[in-house]
Amino acid sequence: MGGDHAPKETVRGSVGAALGLKDITKIILVGDSEILNRELNRCKFKPSKIEICHASEAVAMGESPAQAIRRKKDSSISKAMDLVKSGEADAMVSAGNTGAVLVAAMLKLRPLEGVERPAIAMVMPTQQRPVVLIDVGANTDCSVKLLEQFAIMGSVYSKAILKQSKPVVGLLSIGGEEGKGNEITKEACAALGKIAGLNFKGNVEGHDLFRGETDVVVCDGFVGNVVLKTSESVVHAVQYWMSKEFHKNPMRLLGATLLKGALKAMKRRMDPELYGGAPLLGVNGTCIIAHGASSGRAILNAIRVACESAQNRVDQLIMKEIAKTRAI
Amino acid sequence: MGGDHAPKETVRGSVGAALGLKDITKIILVGDSEILNRELNRCKFKPSKIEICHASEAVAMGESPAQAIRRKKDSSISKAMDLVKSGEADAMVSAGNTGAVLVAAMLKLRPLEGVERPAIAMVMPTQQRPVVLIDVGANTDCSVKLLEQFAIMGSVYSKAILKQSKPVVGLLSIGGEEGKGNEITKEACAALGKIAGLNFKGNVEGHDLFRGETDVVVCDGFVGNVVLKTSESVVHAVQYWMSKEFHKNPMRLLGATLLKGALKAMKRRMDPELYGGAPLLGVNGTCIIAHGASSGRAILNAIRVACESAQNRVDQLIMKEIAKTRAI
Repeated sequence: MGGDHAPKETVRGSVGAALGLKDITKIILVGDSEILNRELNRCKFKPSKIEICHASEAVAMGESPAQAIRRKKDSSISKAMDLVKSGEADAMVSAGNTGAVLVAAMLKLRPLEGVERPAIAMVMPTQQRPVVLIDVGANTDCSVKLLEQFAIMGSVYSKAILKQSKPVVGLLSIGGEEGKGNEITKEACAALGKIAGLNFKGNVEGHDLFRGETDVVVCDGFVGNVVLKTSESVVHAVQYWMSKEFHKNPMRLLGATLLKGALKAMKRRMDPELYGGAPLLGVNGTCIIAHGASSGRAILNAIRVACESAQNRVDQLIMKEIAKTRAI
Repeated sequence: MGGDHAPKETVRGSVGAALGLKDITKIILVGDSEILNRELNRCKFKPSKIEICHASEAVAMGESPAQAIRRKKDSSISKAMDLVKSGEADAMVSAGNTGAVLVAAMLKLRPLEGVERPAIAMVMPTQQRPVVLIDVGANTDCSVKLLEQFAIMGSVYSKAILKQSKPVVGLLSIGGEEGKGNEITKEACAALGKIAGLNFKGNVEGHDLFRGETDVVVCDGFVGNVVLKTSESVVHAVQYWMSKEFHKNPMRLLGATLLKGALKAMKRRMDPELYGGAPLLGVNGTCIIAHGASSGRAILNAIRVACESAQNRVDQLIMKEIAKTRAI
């Protein structure tokens, strides 16, 4: 029920996933059954893999997460999370209120043993291979301990899902040298260097982010969220300037027409939807947070990533890695 | 002597400024006189407005700022700062070691009365009018008090130099509502709202940064530096993808040729060099920090902004505004 284009795009993406992803046994749409049925009937195909689980309430986008989860026991987010908790579902995907998903996951799925706080990871396109930015908004004020755990969780995710055998991990700071940064990153830089088995390369800067030479970039959720949204903002500004300049005269319009394919390909390259939503790492179970503005294609990719995460038991892998560092 | 293309581009930019900016009486090039004279002799015109002040030492880009300023008494940065301190110069511009400029300014010019810590402001292009981001790297860990002063200093700069009569000020956070953010921004949001005469609109997000609806965006120097470098990184990635896609076949190459003017215009729009370096606000005197990779054009613009700042006595305006808020 959540997201700017729900339930239309959510349903479309789910139908696409049910038809296209052979590893999936069942997709349960959780929400108002009447609305969902109507939406499903609009689709050309109604795959038998799709079921509906009725939820009489929905958390609105602007609602206070904690209150919404406490009061709306029958909200689609709560009910979907219950399905994961009970084992009826292996993973949940939501394009709804991020805070509410986070609260529901904390309360119902609970953090993994040894994990202090779950974090939201975001896979972003770069000039080379994609980068995992963690945390992008779950924890605004972070201790060194939290940043250490983010590094481990991000590294596990990169290995399991992005198939990087030895992910290069960097700490987001404002200078390459160890002495650069604010108080917390200076301390964290030293601590991360001591984690056995972590391929930590030290500080990375904003400059390095989209160069694609780092697989996992660690930061607190405040900085990560600002970075994520700033990057989107720059891309929008560039597209705005482009369209303004390209429409100035007929010659330019012709040029733009010849470049139509190239511009489309570029848009695809820059599109974070490709990597299918942001995994909430550090809870029992699989939970993928899709962008509020998700298209059907984004939802499909989020479902694909949810499926891969569940199959690879990313949560169990994280728990094992965290246990290793705690044992030392 | 500082910067990636020094002294060639620095000298070229200075010659351009001496010829083009009529308000300037004299430009003093501070550095190795032999090298500077050689470089000057390579220019077509050698304006009589240009003088050389010999400095036997130079601070390298990677050097520790505090040590360099303490040990190299005859460095070009120190000597240039001395010229401002003694009143022989009205302003200084440097593309050298930013930390060293900061340390020298703190020691020699001293913070303005009432100003706790100077901050580096950066003027950035957006979809609409330019935005002043403050601080972009002088202070990594900031109290609410510091953020309040950054807001006032940024607002004064926007008024005096960018001619915004009532600059809209925003606090960089991760949600529009007052309750969103980390501990320090939550507190700062409430405090900024109470500053009389400040046109504070509340929290702004990364999304809003390049939309151009805010004139001044306040953040700590860690976040500001990450934002600045991330934005540059995104622009580079977009240019990289563009050039890759545009060169894929002859048809696309033809399209790109027709769009040559548009692409150039876009590059100009996105170019922060247009706004001429980052002013160090909150010290006695005028000090402009140019990008390390500054071209002659960037240096010229930095000199222009230095001239305007000195003429408008931005430092005195800041002192007055800070005094007002302290009196309440």
